[in-house]
Amino acid sequence: MSEIVTAGMVVIGDEILSGRTKDRNIGHLADMMTAIGIDLKEVRIVADDQPFIVEAVNALRARNAYVFTTGGIGPTHDDITADAVAAAFGLPCDYDPAAYRLLEEHYAKRGIEFSEARKRMARMPKGAMHIANPISVAPGFQIGNVYVMAGVPAIFQAMLDSVIPTLKTGAKLISAAIPSPHPEGTIGGPLSEIQEAHPETIIGSYPKYQDGSFWTEIVVRSRSEEALKAAKAAIEEMLEDLLKRN
Amino acid sequence: MSEIVTAGMVVIGDEILSGRTKDRNIGHLADMMTAIGIDLKEVRIVADDQPFIVEAVNALRARNAYVFTTGGIGPTHDDITADAVAAAFGLPCDYDPAAYRLLEEHYAKRGIEFSEARKRMARMPKGAMHIANPISVAPGFQIGNVYVMAGVPAIFQAMLDSVIPTLKTGAKLISAAIPSPHPEGTIGGPLSEIQEAHPETIIGSYPKYQDGSFWTEIVVRSRSEEALKAAKAAIEEMLEDLLKRN
Repeated sequence: MSEIVTAGMVVIGDEILSGRTKDRNIGHLADMMTAIGIDLKEVRIVADDQPFIVEAVNALRARNAYVFTTGGIGPTHDDITADAVAAAFGLPCDYDPAAYRLLEEHYAKRGIEFSEARKRMARMPKGAMHIANPISVAPGFQIGNVYVMAGVPAIFQAMLDSVIPTLKTGAKLISAAIPSPHPEGTIGGPLSEIQEAHPETIIGSYPKYQDGSFWTEIVVRSRSEEALKAAKAAIEEMLEDLLKRN
Repeated sequence: MSEIVTAGMVVIGDEILSGRTKDRNIGHLADMMTAIGIDLKEVRIVADDQPFIVEAVNALRARNAYVFTTGGIGPTHDDITADAVAAAFGLPCDYDPAAYRLLEEHYAKRGIEFSEARKRMARMPKGAMHIANPISVAPGFQIGNVYVMAGVPAIFQAMLDSVIPTLKTGAKLISAAIPSPHPEGTIGGPLSEIQEAHPETIIGSYPKYQDGSFWTEIVVRSRSEEALKAAKAAIEEMLEDLLKRN
């Protein structure tokens, strides 16, 4: 059986915590990790505040194979992610020569001033490797098991696409959804027994509220197709029995 | 000047981390907190896994006036929030007599079995106070500074509406948005100087990417209307100067 590979995510930005911007990166990363067989275990959303970023990055990198961050790598004074991640690793943060040249050429070609602010985007922890940015050039970076990417969803998604083929993935978690016309209160007891009888699966139940009544989406997850099938069959049988009784 | 009041949020649920469900509660809480003058400082999304829930609740309740949790208070085996929050406080978790009666009557009236699973929804840490659930009866609860609420957005929002009038709120953070036609790289330098000259404000800049080009939304936040106005004027002047120069 393949190893289980876990990841954490740190979303950096006052604008998410104030509600001004609604995050769209968490759901995307979650979808992508599930698709490739990495378990996203924890997400933290923190303010543009170095101690909080350092704490979150260090907590999550210690207990996950990978940590992905979004936000705070632009050219303005509130973009402090590079410094904070360098501090988390105890590394100096300075202009990366290759990133500096890349940006210098990019702006020269377009006749745009390579301002002090734009130069900030070439700063990264010493020893970091670039993550290509096909949209606006300024690279993200990888240091250790931490991948630092942009907050703008189009750029984040492009950066993640280039990172994904380099990741070691685990046994893929496969899942099956079984809609239940019964609310959770009715199926909770039997479902708990099915969970106990099928330890190789993770059975979740998600209440849905629509037009004044409740139904339930039951989701079975497993790394074994056989175990998944067996649990799914047991749940379907349980649901049929309930219908006959009512 | 009024005190600053901060809050944390713990979102509990494997379905968010797997991507199957896209969270809609973080953005709602962020909006509501900003509106009433409470700073949302940190959000953690954790799995249905007691040690992670305990760690998140304890970390955030120690450093914030309030902690709000969503998810994991239904009737099924994967609903472990009540137990986890009780464990975080070192309290026993048992059937709350008032909640038990409330649910018992509710199901009796509708001729629905008050199953063992449904009884689980009456469990809460000893000493907890109810948070009313006008939609599906099963209450949330408050213990210490932690407010435990449902994950279904309609129920979460209704519960939060009843909690909000009881909260001590701080000086309201007011904000003004100033659209900049210039990308961040152009305004980053002058904006940083304006931030330094206006320490009573928090100036954020958020890159927007649309139809192949960048513009920037500049947001000034302050607890003082006067300070906000002064910083806004300085930014508008800076943007005009830039337009004249180009």
